[in-house]
Amino acid sequence: MELNRRTFLRVGALGAVWLGMGPDLMAADPFESLKVLSTDPPNAEPHLADLVRDWITPVEHFYVRSHAVAPKLDPGTFKVSVEGLVQRPMQFTLGELTGKLQPRTVTATMTCAGNRRNEHSKIKKIDGVPWGEGAIGNANWTGIRLADLLKKAGIRESAKHIWFEGADRIPKGGDVITFGGSIPLEKALEDATPALVAYEMNGKPLTADHGFPLRTVVPGYIGARSVKWLRRIVVSDRPSPNHYLQGAYKLVEEETPEFLAKAPPIYEYILNSAICVPASGSKVDSPVDVRGYVLGPGDPHVTVAKVEVSADGGKSWTQAKLLGKEMPYCWRLWQVNIDLPEGSTELIVRATDSQGNQQPQTVPWNVKGYMYNAWHHVPVTTG
Amino acid sequence: MELNRRTFLRVGALGAVWLGMGPDLMAADPFESLKVLSTDPPNAEPHLADLVRDWITPVEHFYVRSHAVAPKLDPGTFKVSVEGLVQRPMQFTLGELTGKLQPRTVTATMTCAGNRRNEHSKIKKIDGVPWGEGAIGNANWTGIRLADLLKKAGIRESAKHIWFEGADRIPKGGDVITFGGSIPLEKALEDATPALVAYEMNGKPLTADHGFPLRTVVPGYIGARSVKWLRRIVVSDRPSPNHYLQGAYKLVEEETPEFLAKAPPIYEYILNSAICVPASGSKVDSPVDVRGYVLGPGDPHVTVAKVEVSADGGKSWTQAKLLGKEMPYCWRLWQVNIDLPEGSTELIVRATDSQGNQQPQTVPWNVKGYMYNAWHHVPVTTG
Repeated sequence: MELNRRTFLRVGALGAVWLGMGPDLMAADPFESLKVLSTDPPNAEPHLADLVRDWITPVEHFYVRSHAVAPKLDPGTFKVSVEGLVQRPMQFTLGELTGKLQPRTVTATMTCAGNRRNEHSKIKKIDGVPWGEGAIGNANWTGIRLADLLKKAGIRESAKHIWFEGADRIPKGGDVITFGGSIPLEKALEDATPALVAYEMNGKPLTADHGFPLRTVVPGYIGARSVKWLRRIVVSDRPSPNHYLQGAYKLVEEETPEFLAKAPPIYEYILNSAICVPASGSKVDSPVDVRGYVLGPGDPHVTVAKVEVSADGGKSWTQAKLLGKEMPYCWRLWQVNIDLPEGSTELIVRATDSQGNQQPQTVPWNVKGYMYNAWHHVPVTTG
Repeated sequence: MELNRRTFLRVGALGAVWLGMGPDLMAADPFESLKVLSTDPPNAEPHLADLVRDWITPVEHFYVRSHAVAPKLDPGTFKVSVEGLVQRPMQFTLGELTGKLQPRTVTATMTCAGNRRNEHSKIKKIDGVPWGEGAIGNANWTGIRLADLLKKAGIRESAKHIWFEGADRIPKGGDVITFGGSIPLEKALEDATPALVAYEMNGKPLTADHGFPLRTVVPGYIGARSVKWLRRIVVSDRPSPNHYLQGAYKLVEEETPEFLAKAPPIYEYILNSAICVPASGSKVDSPVDVRGYVLGPGDPHVTVAKVEVSADGGKSWTQAKLLGKEMPYCWRLWQVNIDLPEGSTELIVRATDSQGNQQPQTVPWNVKGYMYNAWHHVPVTTG
C-alpha cells in the first residue's frame, strides 16, 4: 500500500508539472538568443561567444535541429510504445514511465553531423542547413535508461538494433514521413553512460523544439540518433528502414541509390574543435584571449590529449589549457593567450586525441557536408 | 547419461589433440618464414609480399609479438581461473572449457600498436621493436566466448573491467612481471563479434608463440589486449594495474609518471593502410600492380570507404579495388594498376573510412612510437 501510494503521488506530481509546463514554454520565443537559420522547419544555433560561457549549455543557447515544426503533443494522453522482437509489447504514459522506473541523469554533448557545414561548403557548395560552428551543446539529460525499458519488455535473442520513431510529420517527395533511425543493441545496453529516453534537459521538461515530451539521448552518437518527440521504440534484427538512417546521414560523394546503399549509417561523432572567441573578423589586442570547445570522438575510452592554437599558419603551435573535468561523451572548453603579429592574421585550432588521431588540415568533400572537422580558422586584425 | 558420455568423449578427444600437438609444433622453427626482429623475447613479422597473398593470414606468416620467451605449459594440467567480482570463482582445465561451453569461431584482424614504428622512428628515433608494416594479420580464432565464461561465474553489479594475466615471466626493473591488461566490461559482453578465450588459430591449436594453450582475442583492440598464455581472468571495478595497461601502450610525449598517469590506455586500433607489393626500392614496369592491406578503426559500425594510391606525391589519386568481403574488425586487401613516370618515383597510399576520417599525411610523434598511420610511401624505379 505504502509503495502504491507513493508511486501515485509521484506520478501525480510529475503529470501536473508536465501539464503545466508544456504550454507555458511554447508561448515564449525559444529562438530569442539564437541565430535562426530556417523557421520551417526550425533550425537555429547559438552565437559562439554564448556557447563557451558554460560547460553546461543553457537551453536558450542550445542549437535546435528539426526536420519539421515541433508537433503539439498532449502530455496527458501521450504514450510511447516498445514493440517488435520483445516478449511483452508495452505502452507507457509519461506518468507510468517515471512512476515505474528509476530516473537517471547523464551529462552528454550532442552535436549535429552537419556542424561546420558552412566551411565544408567553401570546398564546393552544399545544400542543407548552413551550420556554422554552433551545432553542438552539452547538457544534463534526465530520463529512463533505454536498457531498463527494453528489459521490462524482454528482448528476444534475435534482437540486434533498436529503432526510434518520432511524432513529427516531414513532407518528403510528395509523401509525409516521420524522423527516425536506430542504434545497435550493444549501444542501447551500454552501462556506464547509458542511452536515455529523456524527458528533462538541464533539470526542466524538454522544450517543444527539443522534443517535448520525450526524446532519446544517445551519448557519443551524432544528434540524428537522438530522436525527438519519441513515440515508438521497435526492437529488430536489422537497422531501421527510416530515410534518416538509410538515405541521409551517410558520407557519400554522390547522392545516388548506389552510393547510399554502399555507405553505412554514421553513428559516433568524430574529434572536432573550434575557436569561439574572438569572433571571426574582429579587431583584437595582442596577446589575445582565445577560447573554444573540443569534443573527442564518440568513444568513452578515448580522451582529448591536447588542443593547440597557431597564429602563423600552422608553423608553430601553442598548447591551450583544457578547462574543467574530463567526462565520457562530453566536450571540454579550452583557453589560451596568444601573441599576434601586427595587422591581419588567422588563428587556427587543432586537437589530438589519446589514440593519436589529430584533426586534419583539410577533409575530403562529401555531398551532404557531414563530419567537417578540419583545422578551424578565424581571421582577426590587431593594431 | 547420454549427455555425460558425449561430453566425456569430446573432452577426451580434445585433450588428446592438445597433448599430442603441443610438443610437435614447438619442435619446428616457427620463424622460418618470418623476418626475425629479436629472439629473446621472440618478435618477428612476415615479408610483405607473403602478407597480402591471402585474406586469412597463415600462421607461418603471422607476426609474433612477445615480451618474454613462450612459457612451456602442460595442457594436461593447465587451468585458467575466473575470479574477482563474481558470484562463483571458477577454474577450468582445457577439457572443461571445451566440454562445458559452446565453441565459437570469430574472424578478426590483430595488429600491434607498434606496427610501422620504423617510419615513426624517422621523425625521431624510438626504442622498442623496430616494426615495419607487417605487425598485422587476419585469422580465424576459435574458442569460448569470454561473455559465456563470465556468465558462468556470475558477474557482480560493481564489475566494470575484465583483467587478463598471462603465464609469461618478463624481467622488468630487477623484478619479474607477467604480461596483462584489461578491457571494459561492455567490450567483453559485445555480442555480434565477441571477444574470445581462444585455443585455436585457423583451425589448429595455438602455437607456443601465439599463446598455446589459451589466449584472449579481443576483436577491434590493439594486439596487447589479446593476452597470450592466459591463466587468470579477474573481474574488477577498475582497469588492471598491470604495467602493460598502466605504463605502456599509451600515447605520451615523455615517458614520465606524470604523462603516463594522464594518458588513458589505448584500446581500439585506428584506420591504417600500407603498400605491400611492389617492395620498397624495387625496379618495376609501368603500369605497376600495387597491392596492400587496409584496416578500418576498431569499431564494428565503421567501414573502409576507399583506398587511394598516388604516384605523383599526392597531387592525383587513383582509387584501388577493395577485394573480398567487408566484415567487422577485419582488414581488406586491395589492388590497383598505376601508370608510373620514367625513373624514380614514390607510390603513396591513404585510406578513408565511412565517418570521413582519412589517414593523415603526417602524424604527431610519441615517445613509444605507437599508432603510426600516416600515408605509406614506397619508393620504386622504372625503366
